[in-house]
Amino acid sequence: MDRFELTQTIEDAMDDKGLTYAKVAEEVGMSPVFVTAALLGQMALPEEAAKKAADVLGVPEAEKGLAKIPSRGSLGMDVPTDPLIYRLYEIVQVYGTTFKKLIEEEFGDGIMSAIDYDMDISRQPDPNGDRVRIVMSGKFLKFKKY
Amino acid sequence: MDRFELTQTIEDAMDDKGLTYAKVAEEVGMSPVFVTAALLGQMALPEEAAKKAADVLGVPEAEKGLAKIPSRGSLGMDVPTDPLIYRLYEIVQVYGTTFKKLIEEEFGDGIMSAIDYDMDISRQPDPNGDRVRIVMSGKFLKFKKY
Amino acid sequence: MDRFELTQTIEDAMDDKGLTYAKVAEEVGMSPVFVTAALLGQMALPEEAAKKAADVLGVPEAEKGLAKIPSRGSLGMDVPTDPLIYRLYEIVQVYGTTFKKLIEEEFGDGIMSAIDYDMDISRQPDPNGDRVRIVMSGKFLKFKKY
Amino acid sequence: MDRFELTQTIEDAMDDKGLTYAKVAEEVGMSPVFVTAALLGQMALPEEAAKKAADVLGVPEAEKGLAKIPSRGSLGMDVPTDPLIYRLYEIVQVYGTTFKKLIEEEFGDGIMSAIDYDMDISRQPDPNGDRVRIVMSGKFLKFKKY
Amino acid sequence: MDRFELTQTIEDAMDDKGLTYAKVAEEVGMSPVFVTAALLGQMALPEEAAKKAADVLGVPEAEKGLAKIPSRGSLGMDVPTDPLIYRLYEIVQVYGTTFKKLIEEEFGDGIMSAIDYDMDISRQPDPNGDRVRIVMSGKFLKFKKY
Amino acid sequence: MDRFELTQTIEDAMDDKGLTYAKVAEEVGMSPVFVTAALLGQMALPEEAAKKAADVLGVPEAEKGLAKIPSRGSLGMDVPTDPLIYRLYEIVQVYGTTFKKLIEEEFGDGIMSAIDYDMDISRQPDPNGDRVRIVMSGKFLKFKKY
Amino acid sequence: MDRFELTQTIEDAMDDKGLTYAKVAEEVGMSPVFVTAALLGQMALPEEAAKKAADVLGVPEAEKGLAKIPSRGSLGMDVPTDPLIYRLYEIVQVYGTTFKKLIEEEFGDGIMSAIDYDMDISRQPDPNGDRVRIVMSGKFLKFKKY
Amino acid sequence: MDRFELTQTIEDAMDDKGLTYAKVAEEVGMSPVFVTAALLGQMALPEEAAKKAADVLGVPEAEKGLAKIPSRGSLGMDVPTDPLIYRLYEIVQVYGTTFKKLIEEEFGDGIMSAIDYDMDISRQPDPNGDRVRIVMSGKFLKFKKY
Amino acid sequence: MDRFELTQTIEDAMDDKGLTYAKVAEEVGMSPVFVTAALLGQMALPEEAAKKAADVLGVPEAEKGLAKIPSRGSLGMDVPTDPLIYRLYEIVQVYGTTFKKLIEEEFGDGIMSAIDYDMDISRQPDPNGDRVRIVMSGKFLKFKKY
Amino acid sequence: MDRFELTQTIEDAMDDKGLTYAKVAEEVGMSPVFVTAALLGQMALPEEAAKKAADVLGVPEAEKGLAKIPSRGSLGMDVPTDPLIYRLYEIVQVYGTTFKKLIEEEFGDGIMSAIDYDMDISRQPDPNGDRVRIVMSGKFLKFKKY
Repeated sequence: MDRFELTQTIEDAMDDKGLTYAKVAEEVGMSPVFVTAALLGQMALPEEAAKKAADVLGVPEAEKGLAKIPSRGSLGMDVPTDPLIYRLYEIVQVYGTTFKKLIEEEFGDGIMSAIDYDMDISRQPDPNGDRVRIVMSGKFLKFKKY
Repeated sequence: MDRFELTQTIEDAMDDKGLTYAKVAEEVGMSPVFVTAALLGQMALPEEAAKKAADVLGVPEAEKGLAKIPSRGSLGMDVPTDPLIYRLYEIVQVYGTTFKKLIEEEFGDGIMSAIDYDMDISRQPDPNGDRVRIVMSGKFLKFKKY
Repeated sequence: MDRFELTQTIEDAMDDKGLTYAKVAEEVGMSPVFVTAALLGQMALPEEAAKKAADVLGVPEAEKGLAKIPSRGSLGMDVPTDPLIYRLYEIVQVYGTTFKKLIEEEFGDGIMSAIDYDMDISRQPDPNGDRVRIVMSGKFLKFKKY
Repeated sequence: MDRFELTQTIEDAMDDKGLTYAKVAEEVGMSPVFVTAALLGQMALPEEAAKKAADVLGVPEAEKGLAKIPSRGSLGMDVPTDPLIYRLYEIVQVYGTTFKKLIEEEFGDGIMSAIDYDMDISRQPDPNGDRVRIVMSGKFLKFKKY
Repeated sequence: MDRFELTQTIEDAMDDKGLTYAKVAEEVGMSPVFVTAALLGQMALPEEAAKKAADVLGVPEAEKGLAKIPSRGSLGMDVPTDPLIYRLYEIVQVYGTTFKKLIEEEFGDGIMSAIDYDMDISRQPDPNGDRVRIVMSGKFLKFKKY
Repeated sequence: MDRFELTQTIEDAMDDKGLTYAKVAEEVGMSPVFVTAALLGQMALPEEAAKKAADVLGVPEAEKGLAKIPSRGSLGMDVPTDPLIYRLYEIVQVYGTTFKKLIEEEFGDGIMSAIDYDMDISRQPDPNGDRVRIVMSGKFLKFKKY
Repeated sequence: MDRFELTQTIEDAMDDKGLTYAKVAEEVGMSPVFVTAALLGQMALPEEAAKKAADVLGVPEAEKGLAKIPSRGSLGMDVPTDPLIYRLYEIVQVYGTTFKKLIEEEFGDGIMSAIDYDMDISRQPDPNGDRVRIVMSGKFLKFKKY
Repeated sequence: MDRFELTQTIEDAMDDKGLTYAKVAEEVGMSPVFVTAALLGQMALPEEAAKKAADVLGVPEAEKGLAKIPSRGSLGMDVPTDPLIYRLYEIVQVYGTTFKKLIEEEFGDGIMSAIDYDMDISRQPDPNGDRVRIVMSGKFLKFKKY
Repeated sequence: MDRFELTQTIEDAMDDKGLTYAKVAEEVGMSPVFVTAALLGQMALPEEAAKKAADVLGVPEAEKGLAKIPSRGSLGMDVPTDPLIYRLYEIVQVYGTTFKKLIEEEFGDGIMSAIDYDMDISRQPDPNGDRVRIVMSGKFLKFKKY
Repeated sequence: MDRFELTQTIEDAMDDKGLTYAKVAEEVGMSPVFVTAALLGQMALPEEAAKKAADVLGVPEAEKGLAKIPSRGSLGMDVPTDPLIYRLYEIVQVYGTTFKKLIEEEFGDGIMSAIDYDMDISRQPDPNGDRVRIVMSGKFLKFKKY
């Protein structure tokens, strides 16, 4: 069973059991972002976490499968077509050079790591309509000069 | 003078005066992210803000220019090549479906607005190396059912 | 059964029963545009609507399936090849900048939402040959200044 | 002076004179959509209209230039990056197959013309926030059977 | 059975029965170009024609299938690789602007319809080697001025 | 002066003198299609024809320039955006496989040459609206078997 | 069995029987280049040749299949990734304009046919390491002037 | 003067002096293919050869310029649009896998070098019309096994 | 069984037996880079090596399969999406011209072979965190001058 | 003067003074790879290094210019056309998945940094022809689990 089929199997199991990604993450005891990414074939869970996930889901193949390092890339094409995902791409399109200038002014020549990286997604109550709040945190890595 | 030339002129003026984007933003009295995006030709400043920016920069054309609505898109191509900007694209590539699942579980069928949207970029001190912290906040918009 | 197979199954059922999209929408009691988009895997129906649709179609899987949020994007590629759909793309190609100028003159800096959005397609009788009339309505969203 | 330079010159003249596209259209006496598209290099004005536009704008070259048939296409690439224009592309992406099914059910096998076509953009007051309303009307053209 | 499978089934049946596209068209009593396009999944036959074609081919599913409106586009990619088809693309590449200038000089601002359109392909005897002769005829459509 | 600039210069001269492409072709004494393609930088005129064209246009550089073999390709991208030119591309998209089947049934395995090729564009009067008529004729070339 | 499956079946049969492409060509009595191209689904063999090939291969379906005109194009994408095939693409990239200038100087305005074309691939012994020698021969075709 | 401008300058000089690429190559005393490629900015001439070429052309900058190693790639895009150059691309498209099979059968796993490579283009008289003959010779390079 | 399926089968066998790529390479007695590339369908093993690999893996089809020359290209698209593989692409993007200048200064006009090429990947201990060390070695090939 | 013009100016100065990249690097006292990348607009030199470089080159603007953080990406397109640079892209195409498997087996789930990264290019003498030796070293970065 390859990783793509595993994701399908897991999603079916979640539908049958009425599980949410947040709920599985809670049972696994790790961040909802990280666990969801793993269930969707983008991250590898630690072995015990994979075991717990497999139990909660009732999908035994997931124990080994979720602990394997995947081949990453969830869009399937360069520019995403789903509106929710496109908005994030649009932020990169519109604010890409802004990120570059402000991070470089504050930190010097380097990047924000997308590997030593964590993220949180939450609801931010607002009288004009609640807001989606995303907090990203990535280690700053300096370009080595040699 | 089109918006692209204005951006070049502003950057030269900043080099000459030793100004940073953060400093210009402070003088203008608005968020560094928003002001930087405007200086880079991606946002329109309110008129007084544009006036203040023009004064600080010593670029009179900026008063009118920065208040004009730009044609947005800062990457120049579908997949960015600059490593700092690419990391953000990579986050969309790897976590795109994760964003979709978690936002939809929490809010229902809709998107995080990239228009009624604000963002903050800051330094997060860390003994293992400081981290770049990005906080995004966008109004949740529900797909209309009709 | 994934959403793509569901769409195939629904279309077969409609052929067998001689149903039109307009007819299904009428039975469901919602707009033909919205219901058709849902049947084609681009929108999620409210639960009761999905139930009604499943009954009309005689496709039990549709009850759950049509109420799920889909991964959106119906073209399969950047530029559509079907002549009917291409004409709409052409309108964006030819009138794209016109939309931008006129909406911004009337409303200021922002966009027409494609989420808080509804649409109607109808026949407009005309002695020189009837016309297709499309009415789009989307909430104006202002770029937040911060 | 090629059409692209003419568009730049016209936009500068409008800035100097404080003209809006809607205002120029009013002076010319034709639809704002059509006149704006012509000013942006996507449509050819009738000769008297071009003359009037040239007078209002104070750009003599526009008299001949605006009456010439342009090489059309305003996006510059397959997928637009400006958020306002992208939303229209997204509507084609999400609703493309819906347009196809509903138009074909109502009219038979054919297309909505993008040539014998007119369009109107207006403000639709709404207590929850005003809406952009776009009305498109294109002649239905039947595929010839031979 | 989707349209692509129908095309495969029809081609197998033609091989078995030794039928040519021209022969099927003759039996159906319509133009070879139009009937071939329908058999290849690009046009919809009128119902009686579809019935006749199904009989000649001995493929009962074709009766309903050939009368359905297809999703059009036969190349599978932007630039065709088959040499015979590429030559037509090349004609568009080399003569595209020539078509534009000459049609516009003769007819004004508009297009040749590809919908109210018919075509004929025939052999033109020639002592230096016979020639392929293609006659295209499409209604001229004027850009509406409004 | 490269070929692209020559085309610009020629078009300006034609505007000044009120010349049409058809008129220049008549003076040159060759087919309007061929002469227009040459003026647009896609074909090389015979030397005397180039001389005549240069005289008619009043552009001396054209004498040498129009007789030079150009680097061909008039679209500038894979899929044309101008509606008139796109319709021809659409014909290739929709009828590509039809051309292939019918030419091969009539002639065997080979292609219609786009080099030993001529073409004519004319008006075909029609009570339902005049039609554009395009007649293409290319030598059939057999794939060599060796 | 479509042409792609036929190619797979043929390759399996060749593996089982220990046949090389050169050997099959020898049995068939035609050029190795031409026969290999046919076995790979890019050329149509004459009927007797197809029969001989089917016998040698022990694949009865090949008799009809190899004589059918294929849909050509063996790369699967615009730029080939296999190093051996890429080198040929690179020759076109680097020497493309050179081919153009030298052929046009020698022959005038036209092309080397890729249809009335044959080719030979052989080993050229060399003390510094043997060389691959490719001889291409295509009829020169003059652009028709009309 | 960059390499692209040098190529333009050289071509103008050749036009003025009535020089052909073959003639320049003869004066330089190297292969016409190699010298033409160098004049077109794809190869570096040895220093004395560059000096001779500069003298023949009457372009002093060419002495240094033609001896510099260029950034190679003469097409400007992935798929060439000029018919003469496209035919070569088509040969790679149609015969790519054939090259691969026959070279590997004869030589084993490796490639034909495009670097230790030479080529000759000549006229092959033929009663049915002369042919373009291209002889390519590249060292066979074995994939290293380690 | 085609090469892609073979790779899947091999990976399953490795999972079942708890084998690593490094371990298989050790058993085979060749470089881990080369053997891994072969197992992933990018290189052909010598026959005895293929036999040994088939034994270690317990996959008999691998004996013949791994010795066959594959069609190479492991990315599936032009720009890789997996972060680990993208970093290598980024090095080419950022340092591509640097490679060119330094290799040409040291060796003259030519390339580093990717065929007569070997590579080693190892761990480089470092107090600030271990480093990945990649050593590439390719024969320098001079552009032939002729 | 933007970074691209600076690179041109520097290259002209180097030609005039007969400087090599290696020589400039020696004077600057940093690695040839790093200095060359900076001169080519891909890296930012430390201020003193930029000053030294400006002196050696005799290009005063370089002092400020070379110390500025550039917008990175030296290829100009997705797939490089220059043969020397393409070979590196080919290594990523062929060995991409091999890198992934071997690095992950040795280090776990993570990447080789392209930021905390250094590289060396040297000549490796070899009786069969000298070899280009490239040593890359990048810090291993573990995917954070959270």
